Amino acid sequence: MNVEVIAVGTELLLGQIINRNAATIGEALAEAGIDSFRHTTVGDNLDRLSEVLAEALERADAVITTGGIGPTQDDLTREAICLALGVEMAFSESYAERLRNWWELRGREMPASNLKQAEYPVGANLIINEKGTAPALEIDRGESVIFALPGVPAEMYDLLHSHVIPSLRRRSGEDSALVIRILRTWGQSESLLSESLDDLYQSTTNPMMAFLASSAEIKVRLTAKAPTVAEAEALIAPVEAAVRERLGSLVFGTDDETVENLVLSLARRRGWKIATAESATGGMITTRLTSVPGASDVVVGGVVAYSTEMKARLLGVPIEILDDGVVTEDTAIAMAEGACRELGADVAIAVTGSAGPTAQEKEVGTMVFGFATPEGIGARTLKMPGDRERVRTYSTTAALHFLRLAMQGEGIA
Amino acid sequence: MNVEVIAVGTELLLGQIINRNAATIGEALAEAGIDSFRHTTVGDNLDRLSEVLAEALERADAVITTGGIGPTQDDLTREAICLALGVEMAFSESYAERLRNWWELRGREMPASNLKQAEYPVGANLIINEKGTAPALEIDRGESVIFALPGVPAEMYDLLHSHVIPSLRRRSGEDSALVIRILRTWGQSESLLSESLDDLYQSTTNPMMAFLASSAEIKVRLTAKAPTVAEAEALIAPVEAAVRERLGSLVFGTDDETVENLVLSLARRRGWKIATAESATGGMITTRLTSVPGASDVVVGGVVAYSTEMKARLLGVPIEILDDGVVTEDTAIAMAEGACRELGADVAIAVTGSAGPTAQEKEVGTMVFGFATPEGIGARTLKMPGDRERVRTYSTTAALHFLRLAMQGEGIA
Repeated sequence: MNVEVIAVGTELLLGQIINRNAATIGEALAEAGIDSFRHTTVGDNLDRLSEVLAEALERADAVITTGGIGPTQDDLTREAICLALGVEMAFSESYAERLRNWWELRGREMPASNLKQAEYPVGANLIINEKGTAPALEIDRGESVIFALPGVPAEMYDLLHSHVIPSLRRRSGEDSALVIRILRTWGQSESLLSESLDDLYQSTTNPMMAFLASSAEIKVRLTAKAPTVAEAEALIAPVEAAVRERLGSLVFGTDDETVENLVLSLARRRGWKIATAESATGGMITTRLTSVPGASDVVVGGVVAYSTEMKARLLGVPIEILDDGVVTEDTAIAMAEGACRELGADVAIAVTGSAGPTAQEKEVGTMVFGFATPEGIGARTLKMPGDRERVRTYSTTAALHFLRLAMQGEGIA
Repeated sequence: MNVEVIAVGTELLLGQIINRNAATIGEALAEAGIDSFRHTTVGDNLDRLSEVLAEALERADAVITTGGIGPTQDDLTREAICLALGVEMAFSESYAERLRNWWELRGREMPASNLKQAEYPVGANLIINEKGTAPALEIDRGESVIFALPGVPAEMYDLLHSHVIPSLRRRSGEDSALVIRILRTWGQSESLLSESLDDLYQSTTNPMMAFLASSAEIKVRLTAKAPTVAEAEALIAPVEAAVRERLGSLVFGTDDETVENLVLSLARRRGWKIATAESATGGMITTRLTSVPGASDVVVGGVVAYSTEMKARLLGVPIEILDDGVVTEDTAIAMAEGACRELGADVAIAVTGSAGPTAQEKEVGTMVFGFATPEGIGARTLKMPGDRERVRTYSTTAALHFLRLAMQGEGIA
């Protein structure tokens, strides 16, 4: 099975949007063991889009398009499919009803243009899009098939994994099971990590090993393919054990286990309430903790003490400590203690630092983390590379890891 | 002049790397007024790469490739060009000498494989790559031309701007300019917005109109092409004026003017300090405000009062107001007033709501915004669609807009 990907949108050609969807789809296909030899990007132009579609259908068993199925005039993927396949456009009265209900539920009248999303090339199946109003389409054409997905990444991702990949696997006749194990690490660079696993990387092909870096965490991904899930699991087990032995405490979580989830479950287990005290990260730590549904049972709140005055005023950091320096371990610890005291929490993580672009007290990228738990206090200083955005993102991840480690009793004095 | 872009690399197809180069090149071409209708990604495979090249040359006046010109076995762009054009490979003794010197200067012996970078398809010009060892190539073929650039973004960027774009503009004979105007709107759905502009959309082709939706804001993009920038501006002016008249106060910014930038500059102009009081958005509003370098001169800080107790404790929201309900306009206003008072700010935005997945007091998606300025107070209630993540993101955007409007005197009682 050979699948081509077509990303639709003039904004992609003009470079106003980076084509992340192509990478997302490419990765999902690779994990599913499905070949993909060509990705094409084309603008919101009926003739060129239908031409690209027709050519791709000549070469591939399946074509996945993203974008161009919204309600506006420049959304032309449906029309281009009709043109490429030589079929008429039909209208789904039941989907139109669904659209009307969607708007009615929100107490608003549906703009007439939205009905466009109930149109479909004759022969297409409409696939419900749980995160948006434009349905995805699946259109069989002889031996091949077109999947038309939305361009909005979150909508695209869900439909890709819930519908497209399973359908492609069924179609390819391959009922092999695919098991993916992700070992999440923090604390070492991608190049050092991959170097330390190089012999394992070279010597195993099933499971296949890959490294994925994302905001300071490196994931080691093992993908095994076998007739059954149990057999795929059995292929993964020895390699996973070897990786875990090699990496030791660098591995903090498995599969979907994020550091914020770990922090929240540690707090629940010990009956602790969490507070935050942020400066340069400006709310990002609290945002990540509260992104988890149900966080409110252990996260009481946080303070963004952006100015020095606020660190004294909101967190009660003693003036004599601030006078000695704001980007210091003493200030960070006092911020964490202040957050516990002022917010009535048991544990707190605090960050103070110089995120750039201009240095504040210390060199740009100097970030100081303080933490307090019922068992003690501690601090860490890191020098982060990169620009302001990167310093803030990496510091947020580091803060969550220091909080996790502190709750596990590490780094506490 | 019509240029196609070909990105070469199996890692792109597998989604291990996001294809940023395509966006970089697309943007540079657009700015230069050069059309680009198709981008293709293909793996490190000789036959498929030469096929893609040959096809692109049939359609386009020029083809830009990135990647596949390094020293390793899977770098095949030179070979594919030979195959597509039916020419032999030549060897540049002078470039080989340059490579040897490059390594010698660094006190290292050159790996023999590096000599591959001195090979070139007969008829190609070698273009010095100041940031790396692989030269770029420029190969004329009748009326058309191929530029082969490295895949390393920094090397690619330099060669693109120093050599490729100037060469393409010379070749195109016409130095048409492209002007892009983006009108940023908030407060209306993409479908209603496009409906209200439909006649303008239909009746103008230069400038071309497009709609881009991103986290609750809709951008209207006008792209005009003309011999000079001034003429392109003149083409845009009447359409821009018509769109602005039609959309009125929905348009809040132009081009790169984000809502957070507007909020910060409004505060600077009036000498006001800003504070935030967040509940369901959990720090996202403060994160966006502090993402702008230099925000610290007007943003004093914020409070994430995630639990009801914190709303009283940190923000001094009166118990009798909280007893009447936490997700209410009274609570939101009291939170904003409390943020001003407790943090010593002049203006504040507050959010309280039910972000889901389980309802808190009100139906999931009910979000209440309160704001306070030296000129008065106000509140708004919105019902947001979608899941927790979307409710939080859209609410953050809405909060920044309500803050902007309040600072402009709108919605204030």
